[in-house]
Amino acid sequence: VRPPKAALVCVGSELLAGQVNTHQAWLSVRLRAAGFVVVGESSVPDDVDAISAALKRALSSADAVLVSGGLGPTFDDLTREAAAKALRRGLRFEPALWKKILRRFARYHVKVPQENMRQAVRIAGAKILDNLNGSAPGQFLTAGRKSLSLMPGPPSEMYPMFESLVLPLLAARHARNIHPVEFSVRLSGVPESVADERLDAVRGRWPKVRFTILASGGEVSFHASAAQRSAAMARGMRKALRADILAAVGEFAHGEGNTSLEAALGARLRKKGLTLAVAESCTGGMLGARLTSVPGASSWFQGGVIAYADSVKRNRLRVPAALISRCGAVSAECAAAMARGARRATGSGAALSITGVAGPGGGTKDKPVGLVFIAFDRVGAKTQTRRLMIHGPRETVRQRSTTSALRLAFDALG
Amino acid sequence: VRPPKAALVCVGSELLAGQVNTHQAWLSVRLRAAGFVVVGESSVPDDVDAISAALKRALSSADAVLVSGGLGPTFDDLTREAAAKALRRGLRFEPALWKKILRRFARYHVKVPQENMRQAVRIAGAKILDNLNGSAPGQFLTAGRKSLSLMPGPPSEMYPMFESLVLPLLAARHARNIHPVEFSVRLSGVPESVADERLDAVRGRWPKVRFTILASGGEVSFHASAAQRSAAMARGMRKALRADILAAVGEFAHGEGNTSLEAALGARLRKKGLTLAVAESCTGGMLGARLTSVPGASSWFQGGVIAYADSVKRNRLRVPAALISRCGAVSAECAAAMARGARRATGSGAALSITGVAGPGGGTKDKPVGLVFIAFDRVGAKTQTRRLMIHGPRETVRQRSTTSALRLAFDALG
Repeated sequence: VRPPKAALVCVGSELLAGQVNTHQAWLSVRLRAAGFVVVGESSVPDDVDAISAALKRALSSADAVLVSGGLGPTFDDLTREAAAKALRRGLRFEPALWKKILRRFARYHVKVPQENMRQAVRIAGAKILDNLNGSAPGQFLTAGRKSLSLMPGPPSEMYPMFESLVLPLLAARHARNIHPVEFSVRLSGVPESVADERLDAVRGRWPKVRFTILASGGEVSFHASAAQRSAAMARGMRKALRADILAAVGEFAHGEGNTSLEAALGARLRKKGLTLAVAESCTGGMLGARLTSVPGASSWFQGGVIAYADSVKRNRLRVPAALISRCGAVSAECAAAMARGARRATGSGAALSITGVAGPGGGTKDKPVGLVFIAFDRVGAKTQTRRLMIHGPRETVRQRSTTSALRLAFDALG
Repeated sequence: VRPPKAALVCVGSELLAGQVNTHQAWLSVRLRAAGFVVVGESSVPDDVDAISAALKRALSSADAVLVSGGLGPTFDDLTREAAAKALRRGLRFEPALWKKILRRFARYHVKVPQENMRQAVRIAGAKILDNLNGSAPGQFLTAGRKSLSLMPGPPSEMYPMFESLVLPLLAARHARNIHPVEFSVRLSGVPESVADERLDAVRGRWPKVRFTILASGGEVSFHASAAQRSAAMARGMRKALRADILAAVGEFAHGEGNTSLEAALGARLRKKGLTLAVAESCTGGMLGARLTSVPGASSWFQGGVIAYADSVKRNRLRVPAALISRCGAVSAECAAAMARGARRATGSGAALSITGVAGPGGGTKDKPVGLVFIAFDRVGAKTQTRRLMIHGPRETVRQRSTTSALRLAFDALG
């Protein structure tokens, strides 16, 4: 089975001037899940010739070309013109489409600028894709066996348009007899080199599967994708692949698919009927922010104390002053006392704490930058602590400490 | 003055499988500051033909081509081979370079895998760029008036190599008589439409300057760049440009260059000798995390309370139970009481608080998703509160609330 190929063209001068390109990763993940192989991406400025050249190149290398951006109403929104040029098609103003855009504006009691008429221009042969979240309609074109999907740039407009309109069109056109196989797992609490080594062995056993490993902030995502001729074959392959991957790295897995570590921990807390609190020194709230990124966190997260200054550790977490002067604020003893303090202060069943030297300043010979202690305390159980030594800049130390703390609690509740 | 053109080629299959491409933005910003115009970027998989084709295209459109990734020791690190192919140059194993790599490994007492010998292969005519943070050396090539810079993919290796070795080579080759003009300003506390309108007027007055506006999480970055024939002309233009931009949007500026809002607030706190505390409900620690991302925050940040549950608001921040039952936890009154409570609990001179409905659940007719109250309290002054209504998903509500809170304190201390 030859999987269909997709190529991305991201339009916008801002992408070549410091704006982070998030569409590339977002679309890649979803196209792969639908059975496509993404063969390339290019970012081009708001320039008709540059966009048109990129579209031609993409069409020559892929079955499906996905374009984001350049569909707005202003003079530098040029994707329509560039696509018409690349495909040698005409452009026509569509009064019916213009009426639709006018109705949309009317609903929000907004006066329509004249320049928005550009958005009612359709490329010959294009299917118009309604935009429920903005004024720029998308357009879907075919040329021989290839397709070209034009989508607006803002994520709030592009994401729903891709999922509800573009993806079904692409699947019907390019992946009709393709049954995608996809499995992904997220790991934490494992050195990257160990994950790499074990996963290399998995790769060797599945030569026809495409694998990707992404590591960031102390977590590892491992993806496998392939295509089969029938749904039954796809199911069978997925089952065997899943079993093989989990046999290799299952002990480090905190979830399958997109499950974040914080969501996986939340699920364990909820299952046990426990509530969690935090006490954070060097991470300054990052652990709480990650926990509360999970919708519905209020059913298992209570809150906690950001104890950046030692006075807050003493007064709000009841860490004894003598302990701090004996062991230091960056110590296993202090981490343990902070966790116990946070649990009591909030009346929670469990608590996590982090204290360390995030840098770049503040390191000493005994307590160097990157030294971090984390602790997990649970009612009726012994407090667990871990010593971490993290190499890297301030934000790396903070992110990895946070991940390690989440994993400590996840393991303790396993 | 024609500014030199740069193009980026990012090598790595992971960039087409979900890894966010951060090199594109990072390099774009630095190249622009050095007087280059970035004319395009492409991401290609680990495939000799794909990389080679991308390099040829980039060389045809730009003066300087910058390549990241594919210089590692494994079979899928193919940038050297692809560059040799694109330029029709030979490749030679260099014993002296191999010895250098061996010495590097020896210093870390690591046994060198045989496969690392690939990293000692030099493209004919290339200047080798030492890698102080990894085993993959970079290579710098010229072809006619053009240049090709090959750099390793990991940011910890690429960033220092670019700044210390590649940028000086590029400046000497392509921008010898170019005097770059750059000014950027960061804004907050302004609706994007207002910023857009005022900045459009600025754009109109400077037809030869390239402008970029980036908006994210409630903040707006505005960049201007141009090139001049002499250093004096560049200084003069920068001065006039800066004055014009600040006249248009100075009231919303929290800093010039890369100054983050949290760093700008920290500077004001330090200047006034004030310390800050936080009380966070729906943001769960995000405000504290941002404040403590600033190195040296301990001189003005004390800590605070993550009061996700109402019991924590009552018990740790002394928000009266009667207030919560009368006004609700999402109210200006509660925000004010939380800020006062955080200030007292930590003994700080000032405090910021956030309480709101981040969604997706938890909204009611009176208190819909996106409704957020923030407050700033300072010893000896009236507590200030603001009501925000933020449209968007959970993380947007949380990020924008955090930015608004930081800006509220920034303004109050102005």
